[in-house]
Order: sequence, then C-alpha cells, then structure tokens
Amino acid sequence: MIVVMKVGTPEEEITRVSEELAGWGLTPEKIVGKHKVVIGLVGETATLNPEHIQEISPWIESVLRVEKPFKRASLEFRHGQPSEVVVPTPNGDVVFGMGHPVVVVAGPCSVENEEMIIETAKKVKQAGAKLLRGGAYKPRTSPYSFQGHGESALELLAAAKEATGLGVVTEVMDAADLDKIAEVADILQIGARNMQNFSLLKKVGRQPKPVLLKRGMSATITEWLMAAEYILAAGNPNVILCERGIRAFDSEYVRNVLDLSVIPVLRSITHLPIMIDPSHGTGKAEFVPSMAMAAVAAGTDSLMIEVHPNPSKALSDGPQSLTPQAFSELMQQLAVIGKTLNRWETPQPAYL
Amino acid sequence: MIVVMKVGTPEEEITRVSEELAGWGLTPEKIVGKHKVVIGLVGETATLNPEHIQEISPWIESVLRVEKPFKRASLEFRHGQPSEVVVPTPNGDVVFGMGHPVVVVAGPCSVENEEMIIETAKKVKQAGAKLLRGGAYKPRTSPYSFQGHGESALELLAAAKEATGLGVVTEVMDAADLDKIAEVADILQIGARNMQNFSLLKKVGRQPKPVLLKRGMSATITEWLMAAEYILAAGNPNVILCERGIRAFDSEYVRNVLDLSVIPVLRSITHLPIMIDPSHGTGKAEFVPSMAMAAVAAGTDSLMIEVHPNPSKALSDGPQSLTPQAFSELMQQLAVIGKTLNRWETPQPAYL
Amino acid sequence: MIVVMKVGTPEEEITRVSEELAGWGLTPEKIVGKHKVVIGLVGETATLNPEHIQEISPWIESVLRVEKPFKRASLEFRHGQPSEVVVPTPNGDVVFGMGHPVVVVAGPCSVENEEMIIETAKKVKQAGAKLLRGGAYKPRTSPYSFQGHGESALELLAAAKEATGLGVVTEVMDAADLDKIAEVADILQIGARNMQNFSLLKKVGRQPKPVLLKRGMSATITEWLMAAEYILAAGNPNVILCERGIRAFDSEYVRNVLDLSVIPVLRSITHLPIMIDPSHGTGKAEFVPSMAMAAVAAGTDSLMIEVHPNPSKALSDGPQSLTPQAFSELMQQLAVIGKTLNRWETPQPAYL
Amino acid sequence: MIVVMKVGTPEEEITRVSEELAGWGLTPEKIVGKHKVVIGLVGETATLNPEHIQEISPWIESVLRVEKPFKRASLEFRHGQPSEVVVPTPNGDVVFGMGHPVVVVAGPCSVENEEMIIETAKKVKQAGAKLLRGGAYKPRTSPYSFQGHGESALELLAAAKEATGLGVVTEVMDAADLDKIAEVADILQIGARNMQNFSLLKKVGRQPKPVLLKRGMSATITEWLMAAEYILAAGNPNVILCERGIRAFDSEYVRNVLDLSVIPVLRSITHLPIMIDPSHGTGKAEFVPSMAMAAVAAGTDSLMIEVHPNPSKALSDGPQSLTPQAFSELMQQLAVIGKTLNRWETPQPAYL
Repeated sequence: MIVVMKVGTPEEEITRVSEELAGWGLTPEKIVGKHKVVIGLVGETATLNPEHIQEISPWIESVLRVEKPFKRASLEFRHGQPSEVVVPTPNGDVVFGMGHPVVVVAGPCSVENEEMIIETAKKVKQAGAKLLRGGAYKPRTSPYSFQGHGESALELLAAAKEATGLGVVTEVMDAADLDKIAEVADILQIGARNMQNFSLLKKVGRQPKPVLLKRGMSATITEWLMAAEYILAAGNPNVILCERGIRAFDSEYVRNVLDLSVIPVLRSITHLPIMIDPSHGTGKAEFVPSMAMAAVAAGTDSLMIEVHPNPSKALSDGPQSLTPQAFSELMQQLAVIGKTLNRWETPQPAYL
Repeated sequence: MIVVMKVGTPEEEITRVSEELAGWGLTPEKIVGKHKVVIGLVGETATLNPEHIQEISPWIESVLRVEKPFKRASLEFRHGQPSEVVVPTPNGDVVFGMGHPVVVVAGPCSVENEEMIIETAKKVKQAGAKLLRGGAYKPRTSPYSFQGHGESALELLAAAKEATGLGVVTEVMDAADLDKIAEVADILQIGARNMQNFSLLKKVGRQPKPVLLKRGMSATITEWLMAAEYILAAGNPNVILCERGIRAFDSEYVRNVLDLSVIPVLRSITHLPIMIDPSHGTGKAEFVPSMAMAAVAAGTDSLMIEVHPNPSKALSDGPQSLTPQAFSELMQQLAVIGKTLNRWETPQPAYL
Repeated sequence: MIVVMKVGTPEEEITRVSEELAGWGLTPEKIVGKHKVVIGLVGETATLNPEHIQEISPWIESVLRVEKPFKRASLEFRHGQPSEVVVPTPNGDVVFGMGHPVVVVAGPCSVENEEMIIETAKKVKQAGAKLLRGGAYKPRTSPYSFQGHGESALELLAAAKEATGLGVVTEVMDAADLDKIAEVADILQIGARNMQNFSLLKKVGRQPKPVLLKRGMSATITEWLMAAEYILAAGNPNVILCERGIRAFDSEYVRNVLDLSVIPVLRSITHLPIMIDPSHGTGKAEFVPSMAMAAVAAGTDSLMIEVHPNPSKALSDGPQSLTPQAFSELMQQLAVIGKTLNRWETPQPAYL
Repeated sequence: MIVVMKVGTPEEEITRVSEELAGWGLTPEKIVGKHKVVIGLVGETATLNPEHIQEISPWIESVLRVEKPFKRASLEFRHGQPSEVVVPTPNGDVVFGMGHPVVVVAGPCSVENEEMIIETAKKVKQAGAKLLRGGAYKPRTSPYSFQGHGESALELLAAAKEATGLGVVTEVMDAADLDKIAEVADILQIGARNMQNFSLLKKVGRQPKPVLLKRGMSATITEWLMAAEYILAAGNPNVILCERGIRAFDSEYVRNVLDLSVIPVLRSITHLPIMIDPSHGTGKAEFVPSMAMAAVAAGTDSLMIEVHPNPSKALSDGPQSLTPQAFSELMQQLAVIGKTLNRWETPQPAYL
C-alpha cells in the first residue's frame, strides 16, 4: 500500500501518520519526492482497506493499492496453478479447468414442463453437453412476468437428470430454498443480480456443492473475484466464474456487451475455472454461435448456452435460445476449433 | 406495443402473426409503410413482455413498447398526484413527499458502539435531521472487511431512538433478519446491491414498514421503478426512491456519478418520493455539501447524509462522512436554499 | 511515480530497472514489501508516461502515478488561486471565474435566419444573459441532417451582436474556418466530439480568443484537463471548461447524464472556470430548469442554455430548447438562489 | 416512424399533428390504443430526424424509429450482399471482405526511424501480414507526449513500402495533411477520437483512397455507421469498420473492452468489411493473442495488430505491442483456426 501525501503536508503530520501506521503493525518507509512525499507500507496489507488508511489524516491525497485485495481467489494462492472443479454426475465426473476439454452446459432458461425439459435434456446430451441448465426460480425484471415454477420445477429437473444422467445447474435466488435446490442441483448458480448478495454468498460458501458465480452487470473484475472470495473464505473451494455480458451504453442490437477479454485477464490473476454465457451475453440467438466460437478460441474452460425445443413459445428468454438443431450444428463447429486447440473431448459425441 | 416486421415479410406471415396476437386478446392494426409493415397492438399491453411477442415469428424485426412496464409506480396510477410516505417516529410523523419540507436522514455508515451512535443521533437531531441512519448489517466488497455488528447494533439503534426520539433507517440484507430489524427500524433500507434481489423485495413488500429503495449501481430508471413495483405489487405502498450514484467510466475523483437528473425525470413519471444520497454518490466528504445543495435546488424530497463523530476512526466509509460540525454548517446552508424554495421546515431547528 | 515489481522478480532485474531509471535523471528508491518490491521515483515525473516506464521490464506489474499529468491546468500551477477569463464584449467585459456572478450564455442551437437570431438575442439579453450562443457550423450525427448555415450564419451573429451588444459564442469544427469565425466570435467553442481533436486544440491554443472546451461524451476528468492543457501549452490561457452530460447506460429518459459533481471536483484540482450546459446535459427542455438550479447551487461559474423563439420549428435540438418566456422565468428563479449564494449580478436585469 | 401521443391528448391536437405531418409528404395512420393514440408515418422516413417530429406538439410523448437512419451503409443498400474493399499494393491487390481470407495489418504504433520501420515491415511480411501500419501523426492524450515524426515519418513509410511491397495504413488527424499522407498511404485511418470529426469525414469521403474508420470510444453502433455514412455519402464507397475497444467502467486490467459482438451484429446490418484491433482493444500485449484468436473464430474480415521490434523502447504504446517473434507465433496459431473456417490464405506464407 502506498500513501501519497498532499503537497505542503507539514513534516510533523507525516511523522504522525507514519507512527499511527506503525501502530497497526506495518512498517512505513518514506520517500521524499520533488513535490510530494509518499509513504510505502510494508507488511500484511492485502486485506487492509485503503479507505480506512485514507482517514488517518486530511493530508493524505490518496492510497494506492499494490497488493490485490483477493487472496484465496488469486493465482498466487495456488502458486500459479489453475484449479479444477470436479462435478460428480450420474454420467461420471465432469471436470472444469484449464487442462480439460471445454464443458458445455445447455438447456432452457426456465423449466416449463416435464416433456420439454426431458426432451431438451436428451437433445443437448446427444449434441455433447455435459450438464443441463434450467431455471426453477427465475429473477425477472417485472413482478408480472413468469417467476419460474419453483419447487415443482426441481422435481422435473430431477426427472431429466434421471432420464439422461446429466448433472443439473440451477439458480438459487433465496437462501431459504437452498436445501431443496441442493438436493437436485449438481452446481448452484448465483445470478448476476445477486453477485453481491453477500448473505447468499456466505450461505453457498458454507455448503459443499460447486457454485457457478455469474458476473454482476456492472461488476469490476476485482469485485467479481471478491464475491468469489466470500464463497472461498466460507469454506467452499469449488467456484466457477461465469461472464454473461456487462452493461454498456449501447443496447440497440445486443442486450449486453460480452466481455471476452476476461478470459486472458482472469487466467493471469486467478486459478478459478472460467465459463462464458453467450446467450445472456448477447441476448439474441443469431449472435450466439459466433460468440461461442470466439470464447472457445480465446480459451474458455466452459460454455453455457440456452436451448429450447421451441423458442417462440418459451416462457422466458426465447429470443436468445437456440433450437436443439441449431445447438447441435454449433457443437459440431465448436468441436472443429476445440480440437485444433486440444480442448475438446474425443471420441466425439454422437450428434443428432 | 408496436411490432415492426422485417423488409420482405410474406403477406401470409403478417396475417398469421396478427391472428396469433388477436388470440392473445389484443387488437392488431396493420400499417403498410414504404419499406416495412408495422402492426400496432391495442389492448392491455402494459404488462406484456416484448420479448415474448418477438418470438412469435422470425420475421419480426423488433417490438417497440409504447406503454411503460410499471403500473402502480407510475404517475398515472395516482392520476398525476405525488404520493406521501408518512413515517411515525417518537418525535411525531415525518412526511416524505413533494409538498413537504425536505426530510434529512443522517448518521454513520455503521453503528459502532453505544456512545458514538447516541452522540451522533443527538447532534444530527440538533442540526435538523428527522431520522437517524446507521448500519447494523453492512454489505462490504471484501469478506475480510468489517461486516457490521448485526443484532447488537440494532439494540444500540433502539437506544439512540429512545434517547432522541428520532426514527431509525437501517438496511436489510437478508430476509432472515427482517423481523428483528423491523422491531427497531422505522424505514427499511434495501441497498443498491440488492435492488434486484427479488426475493427480498417481495418480502419487504409483504410487511408494513416503509421501504427506502436505493438505485442499483447500473440500474436504469425503468428497472428501478420495476423493483419498486415488486414492493408495491406485494402490498406495501410506502416506497421512497433513493439515488446514490451510478457506475460510470471515471472513478478517479469520485466513487460514483450522482445522477441528479433523476429528480425531474422521476417527477415526470412516478408519484413516489425521491431521496438523494450525496455521501455514497460522491464518496468524498468534501464533495458532499455542493451536491446536497444541488439536490435541494433541483427539488429532492429528502437527503441522506453520512455523519460520523470521528470520520478518521470510522469502521466503514470514513472518507465520505461529515463531522457533526460540518453537517450542522451544511444544514444552515441548505436551509437558506430550502426556504427560498418553500421546502424547508420553519421554525428553524436549533443549531449546534 | 511508483513502480510495482511482480512477485518473484530477481534481485538483479530490480537493480537493472533502477539503474535504467536513474539514467533518465530520476532518483529511484526501493521499498522491500512482504510480497513485492516497489520502486519510488523522485524527480520531474509529472509529464512522464507511465506506459513508457512499464516497458522497461516484463517484471514490472504496474506503474502508479502520484503526480497529476496536467500542469498548467492544475490548481497548484496558480498556487491554489482560481483564474478569471475576461471576455470583452460591446456591453463591457464579461468575467468568468469563481469570485464573480454566474455568467449565463443563451441562444439557439443553430442560427437559422436574421429575424430569429436577433429576436432571440434581444430576449435573452433582457432576461439577463451576457453572451449569445448560436451555431453556424453544426456537428450532426447524420450527414443528411441540417449542417448549419456556415459563413452566412456568422454574418447573422455579427448582426445580432451589433443589435444587442452581447458577445458571441460559436463552435469551430474545422481549423480552416478558424479565422473567419474568430472575426465574429468572442469565445470559440470546441464541441464534445472534438475534445480530443488535438490538431484543432493546438490551433485554438495559438490564437488569442477565449476557448470554451466541452467535455467529451466519455472523457475522464483527467483527459478533459489534458485537452485543456493542449490549449494552455500552446499559449492561450483563457479556457472555460463546459460539462454537457456524459454517456451512460440509460438514455430512455435523458440524452446524457449531466455530471454535476464535476463542479466540486474541478474546483479541487484546477483553476479554470466552470460552465454547465443543462440543455445538452438532459436533452429535454422540461428537465433544464431543475438542472440549472442545481448547477448554480453547486457553485458553477457559468451556464449555457438553449433558447429558441419557436422550439417546435427549430432546425436542430428543438426538444431541449426553452422558449424565451420559459428562459426568462428560469432566470428569475436562478436569481433567487444565485443571490443567496452571492453569485448573481445586482442590480437585477430588467425582465421581460 | 411511430409517433406516440401522451395520455389525454385532445382529439383536435391529434388531427392537427396528423395534418402537419401530411404536409411533410408523409401518410399518417392513426391507431387508437386502450390508453394512448399512436400515429404511424408512412413515406420516406429513413433520413427524418425524430427530434424534429417530436417538436411539432408538446403532446407527443416519443417518436420511435422503425427504419435505420443509415442508408448507404446498410445491408439492404446492397440487397444483402457484403461489399469488398480492394486495396492495390505493390505486392498485388489486397481484398477486405466476407468471402476472402482474413487480412492482417501489422506494424508499430509510431514510425520511429528508418531501420525500425523497415525491419518491422520485413518481419510482419514474412509472418503473413499484407499491410503495414505505422503512425506518422499521433493523437496523444498529453501535449507533452511524443506526437509522431509527421512528414518525415511518411517518407520512412514510403521506404518501407518500397523495401517490402506492403501497402501502408496510417492515420490522418488533420485535413491539412491529407494530400501528403495520401501520396504514401494505401488506406487512410480515421482514429477513434476523430470518428465524429465530421469535417474530416467529409474530406476523406471526397478523395479516392480507402478509409479505415475506427469506432469511437463510446460510439454506439448506429453512430459508427452514421460516421461511415458521411464518407459514403461524400462519394467514397471504400470504408472498413475497425473495432478497437470501448470505454467501460473497469480499466484496472484492460484499457478498453473489446466488443467482439460487433462482428455478428455488423454482419446483420451492414455490407462493410470488419476489422478488429486487439492491441488497442486490450492495451496489453499478453492479452492480444487470445483476442485475435477469438476475432478470427467469430468471423472478422481483418485484424490490426501492433508489432514493435523492441516494445520496451517504443515511443508510444509499447505495452500493447508484440515482438516480431510473438507476432509470427500468433500468425501460426491464427492460421490453424483460419484454415478450419476457410478464411486463411493458402499456400501458407513462409514463417520466420
């Protein structure tokens, strides 16, 4: 941590600040610049709050962080080694991580009825997906929109899992539903709107199921990793980071801006596996294939893609859902790129 | 709702779409343009989802909303009349609304100990504040930062209320804490990070205490009003909208960009009372006074200002807290402007 | 400037970097932290480019700036004293600056014809404006929109000036037009879209007329001041900074977000006078009055307001223009606030 | 164009508005909704300004555009066929467009001296680049930073062209330099900061060299295409659109957010060729390869990549420049993906 003092700070104030910081167990080192004095702080500063330091004196101009504020999520925490998140499913372990084939999670936005979820599960499995997504509890902008079928949808997800052996990913919006969701889900999803619902983060951190943490709409990468840190610090090491598009100034053609640069950025600062969701990231089915291709080429560990047997009848997010046929074709295209990068499962899954 | 068809849509597809929409109870009216055909939809469209319509046909280019999606929050819902939120406190009813004096809510970010909260409460009361703010449960970016004293802080808020007669505003982060918070709080705050925690919104909507709904960091005004709509639709009509700064591209000098234009904008579309929080809105105590002045001049119904007896020792948000002395001086300046606009309580409160 | 080295940087590399920086005339001071080493640089670092330093070694993690990159625009450059920009006009000198009455610049977006510009000039003068704005050359998003009457409009501005004695503010879009514009204009406006048209900035910096520099739509405050620095460094000390709204994620109700916090922020870092343009800042006439009030309450030195005798017939920007009557009423409201703050000219101008 | 009237608009006002619009040569069609009346406008509305219509009556709530405002840039203008931009170079024609191999433009940010530019040109040619980029006139945030070697750099570019046969891409910042730049350059670049420098756009539109139009930092896609429309409308049909990262709320790890979704979006609305610049788009050399891979996988027609023989000594943008060696390796990786997509030139270029 570097403390920058304002021009003209009295010498005694600099001494006082240094002494106060020494009292916190830090070793202050003063550098006298041409115009300004800065104080370097040596010690355990990673989890210190710069704001807190700033308030020691009105003469402090700014406090610059040298260490990243996240610790368990940092690449250094694992000495530069990426971590793996292993998800047991009836069909066997699915492994998310840098040295493994790209894992594709697919399925509808919402679970609508038994037939549709089982049909979709079968089709996405055939096309090569390893996990089924499907919302039982849905965060919707409007209270008048369909809110998900809730508990009964969980039963349908269980049925789809039994029918196909696919693992299940579904969203937790309310800690009160956590236990019953965890009975069915193999991965618990925290949605973008709840990325900083810290109560919920602590609770999913205190249970063993892997957590898929979506990036908040306007979350910085540091904030996102700090949200992951809440889960890690609570004891659950199995966190997957999912980019799903950020809010920007132009939503005429796309719902969000899919920030694919998180792939190399996260790779350079965290060990956690990375997932990209081009369906929410663009909001339009016709833009999903090229963004999915881009994500694989850029090195993602995983993709989440919305698939609906009949998008025009979907109760939510129809415009961004692929048909099973379009998904199957996309998977074949992805396989070509994935294989050239040695990131695709072989032998090939049987296609539709 | 206006449905815009793509160039070249076959006539029979336009007929099919019109018939399908007629089946939804809407009356479609076709306009044949030079290049495109559009279909106007007459009927109860306010709560329809445009995405849902879009999926009727791949020939639909876009669906334009004519009605606002919020209903109970809309100005039309009260026939153009602003609403009042009346908050009973030991010192009497405090009324938030357009025809009333500006209500000032002040206090520390977090409740730290009995002495500090009671001292602060007394000082902000003397300076003219009507309600005391103070966090018991604190949303913090880092799991390693101070998380609030929780339940014991609620007792201290109760003590401060008893000592001063001020009403209490405090944040609810977790529905599990709602009952015990509601025993002490006169207004329940939903923080920016939970603005779209729909489970929580429904729960505060099903209880009677007024709710202060902070705008999410990147929430559009429509999304904010839809969040209010969740509370209103659940049965609680007492919602106050609080702007606290939005996320923008430059955070070198301010933490957020305080969007004061929400004052005239909200006035033109909703009946709900408006509050401005210049403390979070700027993140620096030195910028708070001019933004508070601006808010009153622009016509806010209420202000929320962080005050701490010793900002440099604050456990959270010190840099943006005013001292009681600075707050008292600000209140005197605000009174001058507030009185010229006929929005300030007279006789004057006794100042420090 | 603070150079942060990556974890694990070899000792010899730190020495090499330090020696290289010493070769640049800087004095490096090494601080050995718990995990990282940082090098503080003492010397003339304000105009150094951090990127340039970063490239000395792949072991450099980041370079943190301690000094601001602007110099002539900084408050320190004038030892904490705000500057004044004096604009001679036929009616006498108009002074922009902190210790002076708020200067109001008003007029139409575009100069349309002789009658309208002279009528508008008379009316805004009567209401208290000191300078007339009016576009001869107009930056328009579409090549098919009205582009301004150009040279002939300059003659009309000259006529309006002669008729009223008001000084004239008009925009320069092309350096080729600079001379002929400077014959008529008393202040040269650089529009938001040209804020980083560095060729143009250098050219207006090499002539003597004062320059009104609008903030770019997504310019950071530092970038804005660096644009001013181009003008100042070229020799022209008379720069006025005009905030006109920034681009954000929600443009459903307002065209831009008017960032009023620039008022206290700029006051704390630069000596240059500040202007606020609530017309472009909101894009809607009905929101202009409350934002103008807010700007005065927050301490602006100046306002720019669009006024058109018949907004519904305006060739550009009609929706954000006030009628002369509405402008006159607004001026009376502003006077009340301005006088309580001792920032309004007395005796009062005669009103319509 | 759809005109939405406010709730409660008097019948005679609706009639008056309709008549006025009929007077503009449009055919108004009224739809009476449950709460509101809307007027559909039939006729030549693509180049009409919605703001202009709005001002016909204060009873107009909003004006919704149905047609896109760009015409020559639209995909419909070429009946759905992508266009080709053919650039003659000493080595032969280079073709930018959807059905052609990905064109790679590479070279240093600035031309520094003869040796470096010729060396770089040779190396990027060997690795497969078809055009050389290099700045003679540089837009820099600070007036104190290196501004480019100007005219003498143009001579060096000519020498590099002669030495290698590569075509040259360089930026025009000032129309006054246009003629001498056009003598050397095969493609004229308009930088992000000048994307809405309409004077300059008109001037490059009136000369025959192809124009590479970079997207402004916060330009919407529509604004970007309208800027292209300025060039097209002035007579020059050879425009290439280059995405180089947009401004967002998090610049801790990347300088900009590279918006790769423009690839499918532009493909669906314009016929113009697309280029991606991952160097400016991320600002860090280590993130360039994965973003270049992503761009090719997503279907870009072209890439622009900064290459410098010695990035640590670069006079500008060193941190985002690849070494020739790293560029050559990247080209080999890109070739693998490009060939699977049938978008790479064969036979393979000879590699370093």
